[in-house]
Amino acid sequence: MSFAELWAELLPLGRDERTGGYRRYSWTDADAACRAWFARTATGLGLRTDCDRNGNLWAWWGWPGEHAAIMTGSHLDSVPDGGAYDGPLGVVSAFAAIGRLRDDGFRPARPIAVAAFTEEEGARFGVACLGSRLLTGAVDPATARQLRDRDEVSLAAAMRGAGRDPGLLGRDDDLLANLGACVELHIEQGSMLADLDAAVGVADGIWPHGRWRLDFTGRPDHAGTTRLPDRRDPMLPFAATVLAARAAAEERGALATVGKVAAEPGAANAISATVHAWLDARAPDDATLAGVVGDVWTTAQQQAARHGVQVARTQESVTPAVTFDSRLRDRVVAVLGAAGRPAPVLATGAGHDAGVLAGRIPATMLFVRNPTGVSHAPAEHAEPADCEAGVAALATVLADLAGQ
Amino acid sequence: MSFAELWAELLPLGRDERTGGYRRYSWTDADAACRAWFARTATGLGLRTDCDRNGNLWAWWGWPGEHAAIMTGSHLDSVPDGGAYDGPLGVVSAFAAIGRLRDDGFRPARPIAVAAFTEEEGARFGVACLGSRLLTGAVDPATARQLRDRDEVSLAAAMRGAGRDPGLLGRDDDLLANLGACVELHIEQGSMLADLDAAVGVADGIWPHGRWRLDFTGRPDHAGTTRLPDRRDPMLPFAATVLAARAAAEERGALATVGKVAAEPGAANAISATVHAWLDARAPDDATLAGVVGDVWTTAQQQAARHGVQVARTQESVTPAVTFDSRLRDRVVAVLGAAGRPAPVLATGAGHDAGVLAGRIPATMLFVRNPTGVSHAPAEHAEPADCEAGVAALATVLADLAGQ
Repeated sequence: MSFAELWAELLPLGRDERTGGYRRYSWTDADAACRAWFARTATGLGLRTDCDRNGNLWAWWGWPGEHAAIMTGSHLDSVPDGGAYDGPLGVVSAFAAIGRLRDDGFRPARPIAVAAFTEEEGARFGVACLGSRLLTGAVDPATARQLRDRDEVSLAAAMRGAGRDPGLLGRDDDLLANLGACVELHIEQGSMLADLDAAVGVADGIWPHGRWRLDFTGRPDHAGTTRLPDRRDPMLPFAATVLAARAAAEERGALATVGKVAAEPGAANAISATVHAWLDARAPDDATLAGVVGDVWTTAQQQAARHGVQVARTQESVTPAVTFDSRLRDRVVAVLGAAGRPAPVLATGAGHDAGVLAGRIPATMLFVRNPTGVSHAPAEHAEPADCEAGVAALATVLADLAGQ
Repeated sequence: MSFAELWAELLPLGRDERTGGYRRYSWTDADAACRAWFARTATGLGLRTDCDRNGNLWAWWGWPGEHAAIMTGSHLDSVPDGGAYDGPLGVVSAFAAIGRLRDDGFRPARPIAVAAFTEEEGARFGVACLGSRLLTGAVDPATARQLRDRDEVSLAAAMRGAGRDPGLLGRDDDLLANLGACVELHIEQGSMLADLDAAVGVADGIWPHGRWRLDFTGRPDHAGTTRLPDRRDPMLPFAATVLAARAAAEERGALATVGKVAAEPGAANAISATVHAWLDARAPDDATLAGVVGDVWTTAQQQAARHGVQVARTQESVTPAVTFDSRLRDRVVAVLGAAGRPAPVLATGAGHDAGVLAGRIPATMLFVRNPTGVSHAPAEHAEPADCEAGVAALATVLADLAGQ
């Protein structure tokens, strides 16, 4: 099947008709539909499929264990009302590239594996790249089993509900030992390729980044009768912290965002009891990241104290700077150049499963041009011709890496 | 039945075991349980009960229409995780006062009616005092039928689900014509009576107050890849607006609160598409209120423009200043003083059904001491002795007003 045919099959699954965005949260019905699509597609290509101990999907061309496999793929889950491309483009392109290699009569000397990692976005259980982090041992399985979604459903319960055994979660060295290299294809989540007028790029590294939860606890009161000096309103230090995050990011040349907030009890005529907020911060290096988070925390504490509010900070995830394997990167750049598909090298602030795997095996990424740079939103888009260029580039790279 | 017995029967209905607060939203199962309690209690006292066209409950001692009735009562619905007293204290005290008058052999010369108004808090459909506003014609019934809760259920659908006909909603002059005066008893939602060392007070007036929804619309983007100057993040002007509301209230001697916020899509790693916020503002006079809201709106517009964000303002409800009928107030103060129950006069920033009715009939309120001033929260409390003093005061006032 062509890229366009595979893409069209996946497109309706988990899409919200009201927003046009995707709600493919792990271990939900939408996720099950995506998993069924993965199995169906892989089987149609003659690949053997498997679900690993951590819920990640695999499709194998060749037998694992004979030689170090070349792994490609990405993830199928989405942020709330996310776009169609972030994740799925890498999985669909992987299948399309394999179909193209097969049609061309290519016979791999090493196995090629297509992976779809679970909970990459952390949209349901709060930890980004959860599937790949469990695989590599970066997340403790006992901690992971206790993660809860907004309805207080644990990961363990959600997995059991989907027919999976959460007791099997954990580092999987046997599987990792079969993998020789990772090439993840992904839509670019900025507009550098558009600025450079290139359809495909190669990743240089990933900025260090993390997520912190800030819990402001005040005292619930009536909004119409509690005098200002008597109030302990957590909304006020929260608001000051949002502005401090932006200021710190500007000052230090970094990124900081508060995109998720929950005020309880959430009545228009009541002073909040608590405000929970999530800080996403990213920076070119680890010291700058620590500086931004330190600035934000200082303001949060000062403003909380000023308003008689308690504040607590929880680090939900932190990924140190990732520099992808330079030999693999140079080889990918060279083989694409030799094939008449020159691809510039670029860094990104977004985390990816390839960044998690980079701690264990040589890893690299291909980015496909995003004309507007919009991502994590329904308007996320890539032109069909650029998607085809991505498939061609991935096929070229896989043929090179798995051809010997 | 005594106050304590009536109170104990109502207390468990609609209480959330986790927070200890109440979730008695109109036309829900909890609301139905409260309504059944009302009917059972009224019937036990020998009162005839009725539900009016707008869903408000009535219990009659005597026949409506003979003479202008004296109306008492309050409401049974709650804010999210509200306290036990706000509303129910007035209804339970009304029944207890009638029981006491009956035991004392009192025979009313005018009918006495106990009302429980629906959706006083506006917690489900966003419009405070909805039941009394519909009764007096202050809210258009067609608009009311279209109000929607957070799950997009309309008031019309919710009423039909509870077996009520939303087509009957609207101004009810026949019912109003039967009412000669209104005396609502309510827990104080501040601590003035505690400061004055008085168990019961009499209302002077209600500050003008209102609720405005602010919708900030930006552009959803990836938090890890969108450069700061390219962002249109609605969280930033929202945060500035929260701080501006507090500053305006401080400067003008008013109250302003943002207690409800919803950021969409609400992912930790995505810049928000929209932030919806609700401003609650109250002031000693209408001009000051307009000044506070104008200040907040100026900041919202300026900060939205600075960040490339659209902002819209919707006035969800506004109640002008209410000065309760001075003759009725003076009579209540005099009769309580003569009975050895002196009660100070005080103003309040909280809206009440009595304030809505005050536009049509002479109205007054009795407040019962709140030792901490906490309201709209599980910790809301009144001492049993003060509740008994409230019942005694209400019985005294009803005997005076209905005795001739």
